[in-house]
Amino acid sequence: MFLARVTGTVVATQKEPSMVGSSFLILERLDERLQPKGDYVVAVDAVGAGEGEVVLYASGSSARQTRVTKDCPADAVIMAIVDSFSLHGETVFRK
Amino acid sequence: MFLARVTGTVVATQKEPSMVGSSFLILERLDERLQPKGDYVVAVDAVGAGEGEVVLYASGSSARQTRVTKDCPADAVIMAIVDSFSLHGETVFRK
Amino acid sequence: MFLARVTGTVVATQKEPSMVGSSFLILERLDERLQPKGDYVVAVDAVGAGEGEVVLYASGSSARQTRVTKDCPADAVIMAIVDSFSLHGETVFRK
Amino acid sequence: MFLARVTGTVVATQKEPSMVGSSFLILERLDERLQPKGDYVVAVDAVGAGEGEVVLYASGSSARQTRVTKDCPADAVIMAIVDSFSLHGETVFRK
Amino acid sequence: MFLARVTGTVVATQKEPSMVGSSFLILERLDERLQPKGDYVVAVDAVGAGEGEVVLYASGSSARQTRVTKDCPADAVIMAIVDSFSLHGETVFRK
Repeated sequence: MFLARVTGTVVATQKEPSMVGSSFLILERLDERLQPKGDYVVAVDAVGAGEGEVVLYASGSSARQTRVTKDCPADAVIMAIVDSFSLHGETVFRK
Repeated sequence: MFLARVTGTVVATQKEPSMVGSSFLILERLDERLQPKGDYVVAVDAVGAGEGEVVLYASGSSARQTRVTKDCPADAVIMAIVDSFSLHGETVFRK
Repeated sequence: MFLARVTGTVVATQKEPSMVGSSFLILERLDERLQPKGDYVVAVDAVGAGEGEVVLYASGSSARQTRVTKDCPADAVIMAIVDSFSLHGETVFRK
Repeated sequence: MFLARVTGTVVATQKEPSMVGSSFLILERLDERLQPKGDYVVAVDAVGAGEGEVVLYASGSSARQTRVTKDCPADAVIMAIVDSFSLHGETVFRK
Repeated sequence: MFLARVTGTVVATQKEPSMVGSSFLILERLDERLQPKGDYVVAVDAVGAGEGEVVLYASGSSARQTRVTKDCPADAVIMAIVDSFSLHGETVFRK
């Protein structure tokens, strides 16, 4: 999994039937010091994340292991909202 | 998933039998500001996308989770046509 | 999938039993203008491709969705021989 | 698999139900000389690794092949704690 | 699959139970001219490869398609020992 921040939303009405009802969020990838990595990914939201929140996302077939992405052509999913994280015992981020 | 623009078509008559009837489209990868990333991918079209359209594509085993790619040796699929997307509340793209 | 050119062959007699009879071909990866990307991949041939031909290959679990790679430890397969492809309506390659 | 050092912890109370009870650890990726590669990954711990330890992690669908990650949306798992490793017959690391 | 040379060994006693008995080898990745790419991967050995040998390895879920890696959290496996390979009809490597 990787850390990312929710920064946007994609609207798509013409899509695979299995994805009707799914939210596509744009995630800004973050490094382990909370700095943007200059890259993004579009993920389905499985946990009710809001814009600006720091989240964990999973890629590949693991992205289909949630109730909202089961059997969907989704290769990235937000599966946790981050409360806090620490490096070398020091808190880097607290929500 | 990632954003991309449909820019071309690949014709291949000699292919795996399970892929007869599939359209192979060339996608120009886009960043979250709609700028080309200087890279491409060839994807099967599952939603009827046309040249020039901005789409979302999924990679890996998730690319097989559509009616047209089921059990096919396809590792990328267009699974949505983008109507619009926004970043930080600002609309970046509208079809 | 990505475009590539068949440039070589790998001979390996000591291999997983399920792969006996498979051809391992060396592919030079190509960009969408038919220029070499300076990288390669070794793929199993599922369509009878010959040296010098331009092909499409699929990676990951999708590489096992052909008759010759089913249940094999193969992560790349040639699943189509390219006849032609075009970008922005202009033919870039014709066999 | 790749070598990495456990450097941190992610706390997330709002997550996919299947992941309740899982520990999310931040791993600093290492090269084969034990030098940091300047990159990280967040992995679920399946072997009881502690901060500072050198571990092996697996990515993709293989990350779900442990008792703690089965059917979870986890794409990286610590599946071994490294005791030692050697290159060209020379010991590079001993715990 | 990619070409690599076996350069080392990882010892890990504390690991996922399904991996007891597996050998973890360090592979130096090679380009198609047999030059090191400056990168490595740790793979399970399924074919009895020895240090210094040139091998093919497979990644991802395909790495679990051997008798020794079935249902294991392994994302890379050595599935062939290379006897020789050629590029443009010229032999680049012979064992």
